[in-house]
Amino acid sequence: MRESCGVVGLALTDRESDKAALPIYYSLYALQHRGQESTGITVHDGKSAQTQKGMGLVPDVFKKYNLKDLKGFVGIGHVRYSTTGDSTIENTQPLIVNFMDRTIAIAHNGNLVNSSELRYEFEAEGQIFLTSSDTEVIARLLVKELIKTDILGAIKELMRRLEGSYSLTILVDDILVVVRDPLGFKPLCLGEVDGGYVVASESVAIDTIGGTLIRDVRPGEVIIFKDGRYHSHQLSKTRNTAKCVFEYIYFARPDSIIDSKLVYQVRIRIGERLVDEHPVNADIISPIPDSGITFGIGYSKKSGIDYMEGLMKNRYIGRTFIMPDQNMRETAVKLKLNTIPQNIKDKSVILMDDSIVRGTTSRRIVDMVRKAGAKEVHVRIGSPPIVAPCYMGIDMATREELVAAHKTVAGVEAVINADSLGYISVEGLVDAVGIPADDLCLACLTGVYPIEVPGEICKRHQMTLSQF
Amino acid sequence: MRESCGVVGLALTDRESDKAALPIYYSLYALQHRGQESTGITVHDGKSAQTQKGMGLVPDVFKKYNLKDLKGFVGIGHVRYSTTGDSTIENTQPLIVNFMDRTIAIAHNGNLVNSSELRYEFEAEGQIFLTSSDTEVIARLLVKELIKTDILGAIKELMRRLEGSYSLTILVDDILVVVRDPLGFKPLCLGEVDGGYVVASESVAIDTIGGTLIRDVRPGEVIIFKDGRYHSHQLSKTRNTAKCVFEYIYFARPDSIIDSKLVYQVRIRIGERLVDEHPVNADIISPIPDSGITFGIGYSKKSGIDYMEGLMKNRYIGRTFIMPDQNMRETAVKLKLNTIPQNIKDKSVILMDDSIVRGTTSRRIVDMVRKAGAKEVHVRIGSPPIVAPCYMGIDMATREELVAAHKTVAGVEAVINADSLGYISVEGLVDAVGIPADDLCLACLTGVYPIEVPGEICKRHQMTLSQF
Amino acid sequence: MRESCGVVGLALTDRESDKAALPIYYSLYALQHRGQESTGITVHDGKSAQTQKGMGLVPDVFKKYNLKDLKGFVGIGHVRYSTTGDSTIENTQPLIVNFMDRTIAIAHNGNLVNSSELRYEFEAEGQIFLTSSDTEVIARLLVKELIKTDILGAIKELMRRLEGSYSLTILVDDILVVVRDPLGFKPLCLGEVDGGYVVASESVAIDTIGGTLIRDVRPGEVIIFKDGRYHSHQLSKTRNTAKCVFEYIYFARPDSIIDSKLVYQVRIRIGERLVDEHPVNADIISPIPDSGITFGIGYSKKSGIDYMEGLMKNRYIGRTFIMPDQNMRETAVKLKLNTIPQNIKDKSVILMDDSIVRGTTSRRIVDMVRKAGAKEVHVRIGSPPIVAPCYMGIDMATREELVAAHKTVAGVEAVINADSLGYISVEGLVDAVGIPADDLCLACLTGVYPIEVPGEICKRHQMTLSQF
Amino acid sequence: MRESCGVVGLALTDRESDKAALPIYYSLYALQHRGQESTGITVHDGKSAQTQKGMGLVPDVFKKYNLKDLKGFVGIGHVRYSTTGDSTIENTQPLIVNFMDRTIAIAHNGNLVNSSELRYEFEAEGQIFLTSSDTEVIARLLVKELIKTDILGAIKELMRRLEGSYSLTILVDDILVVVRDPLGFKPLCLGEVDGGYVVASESVAIDTIGGTLIRDVRPGEVIIFKDGRYHSHQLSKTRNTAKCVFEYIYFARPDSIIDSKLVYQVRIRIGERLVDEHPVNADIISPIPDSGITFGIGYSKKSGIDYMEGLMKNRYIGRTFIMPDQNMRETAVKLKLNTIPQNIKDKSVILMDDSIVRGTTSRRIVDMVRKAGAKEVHVRIGSPPIVAPCYMGIDMATREELVAAHKTVAGVEAVINADSLGYISVEGLVDAVGIPADDLCLACLTGVYPIEVPGEICKRHQMTLSQF
Repeated sequence: MRESCGVVGLALTDRESDKAALPIYYSLYALQHRGQESTGITVHDGKSAQTQKGMGLVPDVFKKYNLKDLKGFVGIGHVRYSTTGDSTIENTQPLIVNFMDRTIAIAHNGNLVNSSELRYEFEAEGQIFLTSSDTEVIARLLVKELIKTDILGAIKELMRRLEGSYSLTILVDDILVVVRDPLGFKPLCLGEVDGGYVVASESVAIDTIGGTLIRDVRPGEVIIFKDGRYHSHQLSKTRNTAKCVFEYIYFARPDSIIDSKLVYQVRIRIGERLVDEHPVNADIISPIPDSGITFGIGYSKKSGIDYMEGLMKNRYIGRTFIMPDQNMRETAVKLKLNTIPQNIKDKSVILMDDSIVRGTTSRRIVDMVRKAGAKEVHVRIGSPPIVAPCYMGIDMATREELVAAHKTVAGVEAVINADSLGYISVEGLVDAVGIPADDLCLACLTGVYPIEVPGEICKRHQMTLSQF
Repeated sequence: MRESCGVVGLALTDRESDKAALPIYYSLYALQHRGQESTGITVHDGKSAQTQKGMGLVPDVFKKYNLKDLKGFVGIGHVRYSTTGDSTIENTQPLIVNFMDRTIAIAHNGNLVNSSELRYEFEAEGQIFLTSSDTEVIARLLVKELIKTDILGAIKELMRRLEGSYSLTILVDDILVVVRDPLGFKPLCLGEVDGGYVVASESVAIDTIGGTLIRDVRPGEVIIFKDGRYHSHQLSKTRNTAKCVFEYIYFARPDSIIDSKLVYQVRIRIGERLVDEHPVNADIISPIPDSGITFGIGYSKKSGIDYMEGLMKNRYIGRTFIMPDQNMRETAVKLKLNTIPQNIKDKSVILMDDSIVRGTTSRRIVDMVRKAGAKEVHVRIGSPPIVAPCYMGIDMATREELVAAHKTVAGVEAVINADSLGYISVEGLVDAVGIPADDLCLACLTGVYPIEVPGEICKRHQMTLSQF
Repeated sequence: MRESCGVVGLALTDRESDKAALPIYYSLYALQHRGQESTGITVHDGKSAQTQKGMGLVPDVFKKYNLKDLKGFVGIGHVRYSTTGDSTIENTQPLIVNFMDRTIAIAHNGNLVNSSELRYEFEAEGQIFLTSSDTEVIARLLVKELIKTDILGAIKELMRRLEGSYSLTILVDDILVVVRDPLGFKPLCLGEVDGGYVVASESVAIDTIGGTLIRDVRPGEVIIFKDGRYHSHQLSKTRNTAKCVFEYIYFARPDSIIDSKLVYQVRIRIGERLVDEHPVNADIISPIPDSGITFGIGYSKKSGIDYMEGLMKNRYIGRTFIMPDQNMRETAVKLKLNTIPQNIKDKSVILMDDSIVRGTTSRRIVDMVRKAGAKEVHVRIGSPPIVAPCYMGIDMATREELVAAHKTVAGVEAVINADSLGYISVEGLVDAVGIPADDLCLACLTGVYPIEVPGEICKRHQMTLSQF
Repeated sequence: MRESCGVVGLALTDRESDKAALPIYYSLYALQHRGQESTGITVHDGKSAQTQKGMGLVPDVFKKYNLKDLKGFVGIGHVRYSTTGDSTIENTQPLIVNFMDRTIAIAHNGNLVNSSELRYEFEAEGQIFLTSSDTEVIARLLVKELIKTDILGAIKELMRRLEGSYSLTILVDDILVVVRDPLGFKPLCLGEVDGGYVVASESVAIDTIGGTLIRDVRPGEVIIFKDGRYHSHQLSKTRNTAKCVFEYIYFARPDSIIDSKLVYQVRIRIGERLVDEHPVNADIISPIPDSGITFGIGYSKKSGIDYMEGLMKNRYIGRTFIMPDQNMRETAVKLKLNTIPQNIKDKSVILMDDSIVRGTTSRRIVDMVRKAGAKEVHVRIGSPPIVAPCYMGIDMATREELVAAHKTVAGVEAVINADSLGYISVEGLVDAVGIPADDLCLACLTGVYPIEVPGEICKRHQMTLSQF
């Protein structure tokens, strides 16, 4: 369970300005944690679009090119995470489509659950796909409609056909269009910057360029930026939404505000709630860095148990690391995490982490902490047990790999070799987030999905397309 | 007027073999002169296709990857030349298309004259294009038909719709299909190798891998390689063909046999014919390397005038050369060509070249030779005057740039500062090639085109689709 | 004031083993924080030495090469930090010298204060230098002596001549020799690994490869690894040492044990001591990440004030970042650090940092925190004021640039716009470290240097060369 | 037997000019055939020196950098060839040495036969070497003397100590010094350019930048360029010189004038002479491209036999070629050379080549030509049999590998499978070159060396140092 993706859109009021690229670049830098595989920026100057994209981190991709060559007053950007199989230059976004003298550029965060069907439908008509991404499916649908109708009509039809999660920033020539799916799976927020407007996956991107968060883009809303103004259209209204709860637990930066909730505070509350749900008499509370830190601070504050780092992370571990052979696996964990035995020795230690997926890494860490002399090791987890896979854009694991899909908490406790194991409850998590359970996607925690997924249980949300 | 493109296809009889990639790599090496911008190979092992492609020369692209990872018994390859604007990784071939669990890979040498119309037609249906290449147009047409009918039927429809030049090697999953357009603009030949068959733009590619040339693929023919055999289908028959005469003059390697004619011998005959048409009493005949060499040998042999190199070429001049500023232009020519004054001084010199496009380079060379002490400089050209642009895949020049489109031979003689200038006649050229004028494309030399091009004169060839 | 350098040496008992390179690679990974500019490894197999080195991070350099090609039972490694001017491939270490059929490889952490004199002395004899590094000076001295005497004699003379800081790992053919300068400026520690011994700048490197820390290499000690054993020689004994106090404050990883003191605990004690020395009634204590974190935990624990992150760091900010123009400076800080206004608003905030150099960055951070709504901003610093430059290997700043060299604490407080500013006292720092002041180098904090530096005050340590 | 190296020096009269780098770059381009492994340029602007160097071809190395950053009125350049073992960035030239505030930059073409002794002598004094190149030995000797005396005195001592071949271009700060060894093994010529002077290994480099050849630098001469003038000093006079005869046969470009002899004409005369020495009644004469071309033209002219290319070379074959496995060796030759069977079939063919080293490649080519249908294959070689190794800078082969060191001509004829084999005689070669045998180095052809080489026969030239 690693990254998602990140999108940005920026529109300056002054059509003569050519300065849209630099703030988009900075915004993508702030969203780098959402995807480190590839990145790209497309800008438009009113006459034509230019794009720079490539594999790698934001600064690595854009130093190769000259960012100054990207001249435009409006633009979009993307950072991408993907599973190994699709890790190719062709899948890099924004996806650019030229048709009938128009240019469409699309940046997408999310995952369609009906992309195979849509793809099949197009292929049956003789259309072909050059990439393996959902984004090309979206592009085809969009263009098909744009030929017949206006932007808003096209997006409306898009929303009718697409099933799944999609936060989109789109350029239709020099018009910026942003869309959040009706269930609002993925975050998307709107801000004001000096001379224009910005839309981004997380509010930190707005902060970074000195902008001000206005509000979140609403589920089912489309916003069109034109002539220095933005026009909102609530194309779809559902009784309930399905905002991804894992943005709060793991994906988003703690300093982001997602759907009006500061992620940092949600994590503090999760830590506090874990004291109530799973108290333990321990000497220290040590986070597993970095994802356990804020939970740990909350737990410490509420319980009064000392916050003390028993594990240190090597900040330089990245993807390019040479994989050791099988019997060096232990070294691999040691390269990433090192214990501070003096902080641990003869102590009863609480380890805080965000989640347990397969259980193997947790087991190795618990063993390291025991080897460093811990008297007892208690594990507290900032999410409930993950019992079902995600189909909405998170490369988590299959159901077979999920340890909690097959074992009780006691069973997982044994697997990871902990003296005690405490997950936050679903109710506790929902309380900590502060959004009603009916408006969250809790599918991976409950096995009940907000949209239809073949073979899974679905509690269908009622969707109504608004008139406009 | 530089390069064209090159294609290769190879099918081994033994479906268990995984050795198709290496001979394709060697074949592309032999065709490197047809395109130096990008290259790619796709192979299929019966289950799935793998592709490696990239910008640069054949050895540079395939050293980056591990050629051994390309395992398959059948495959295609491509070397590409393109004008600056389209020089992007997306346009690199083979173009890969996945649809309905099938994989299509296409390598194309040629140029469509109705691609804009076809593209518009598709776009009007709501289809979109992700690249700017003709090849994507071909892919769309092909897939559209493959949904409805079998390979042969699809290629038949393709041939009906495509206007222009196309020598194609195609993988439809693990079936190799090769196509030469009905007019046979671009060369394509068939050979036998140890354990299978090979198809390539020029016979040198077959020689290089130790194979034997069987015959040329016929204009309008499609050959399908399946189950260790090949099946020929003459889908189209035209009264006449339109084989590009410039393959013989410039593009093809002299050691290639194109449509049963050895290029070297054609060039020797052109040189000999130039003696008849434009005799001159000179001391030496010196080629402008490398393209004038074989003409020069023929001229020398027939005339008895000494063949003597008055100009030497720097073999290391390539694209990466730092462009000097305007007043260093003379240096630029000197970097590429150097005179040997002792071979030239006080002599009457015949310079042999393949063609004159704008006249500026010819002028600089004539001036260099004069500066080196030549008494007289006579220029003989292995092609007739180029008076019209090419629309069939050669990046030659616009009509405005073509010096012979606006000037008489005497006028060009003055422009290039020669004591005399002699072009081979169209009749002489046709004789030297040994193919009837009606079966050659002479459009750039006559202004009469074998297919309809808006604003140009056309002598339409009669095409008949055969029944099958 | 950024990095130092890091060195590693490893000797396996089994001379037939070729496995020394991988643990050296992992050790360098663990020391990456000490230098990110270049890195290298040299191993020896008893017959010859092989080296791989290059510019960049440890995983980037060694993925280009094949680490498996480095076969040897003994080896050394280096990570390097350097000032811009010297950032060239030639200065990359280990430095390799071949002479009279012997190979010397040297990895050096430190800085000589008499290298110009030694260099001049050699040049006056007609010797030449191919690099600008101190390490070449050391190599020349070493070789000059090795011709006349044995390794120990040569190192003894080296120690007599070199003035400054030097922790060295050296290969003299297949013999590993490690040296720590008589004053022990830079850390160096000795550990045991499965099948041999390891020496490294910090104990984390030993932890990472599953080894056990034996002890620190003593100031003035040389250890020779031969025939599976190690032999210690105390070549120099000084009444006092001069261990760099900034290793504890900033350079070393918190999980390292330097001269028997766990860095983490020293930092916790500094934080606690700051409560005593500079108490303040505040709502939260927020570290400036990452260097202020452990101080902050200590301050919170002792004072009872809530530890709460008010600032978040972008983990992806690195060197390759495109520098914004002057009026984007504020953005530059925002890219690196973002405030969490909800944690700060209307609160009295204590910011913890390790040091103040120029004061400009501190000012920007204080301003950011104020802008985020802090009622009061109190700054607490884990070091005393830096009043003098470092000549022993730290690229800190010139005296002119050091804000505390010219201003009182009140003056600095005004410069950084803090409501209050508290540095730890020198006494407090010394207590927290737990090493007598006379055995620490406090030069940058006191202006009194442990060795002679032209123009600076020196309290000369008494050095006595031991007999052996 | 491949390349040598190439050197350039350029001094502009106007010390304020910063334009020396571009013509040096162009000159190196013209000398690229003398070394393709690495290249470098050093310029001096009167205050300091700047250097750019790297592995690869001239345009590849200097596009990476910005040639415009090299500002100076005087400079030197180098292209390098080396055997695999020494192929490292450290050995790239110019070699830069800084000592006592002076900068020395050295570019060297040649090979010392006493470098081991000199190296040992220095090492015995405790000096160390950081590279494996002779150039570092020269640098040490030079600096050692420059401390004691002036440039001329230093070069005089250099000439006294160095044994072997050396054409040097040196910068002593901003003074250009060029040196050719007393026996004149390697070429070096002097030219005038607009605004200054140029020195280069071959005259083509002077031609390329629009300069005029003045004369060759004389064996034993040193020329110092200072204050816009040059000063010649004949430091050594020997009764005879030892100019490398292989420059005429193979190394130099045909359009170069080496020691007043146009290489092209020498090669034509060799071809003509071969007709006299080894006449044969054949149908065509075909060169092995590229090195056999000019010999072939000469042979054809004199004999009247048709010059006809039976073999074509792939112009794109370079070093980066993926090596085929053993049973693909034949393919390897086919990739490089392809036969034109129509030119060969049923004919008696004369193949012209420059030399036979091991005989294996010649054998493969003869076999290819036979396979293409040749009735008879007669081989004519532009050099006498190579019977002894070269110690003066050519990476030819060991004596064991030289087929002619162990076999008679008849034996070699059998090895290469020729119907007849004719080498030019030593006398014929000397006549063709036009320089007395006593002034040529013919060591590889006679086994008698012009300088002492341990284990080899030497006819010592008498050397007298002139007074100055």
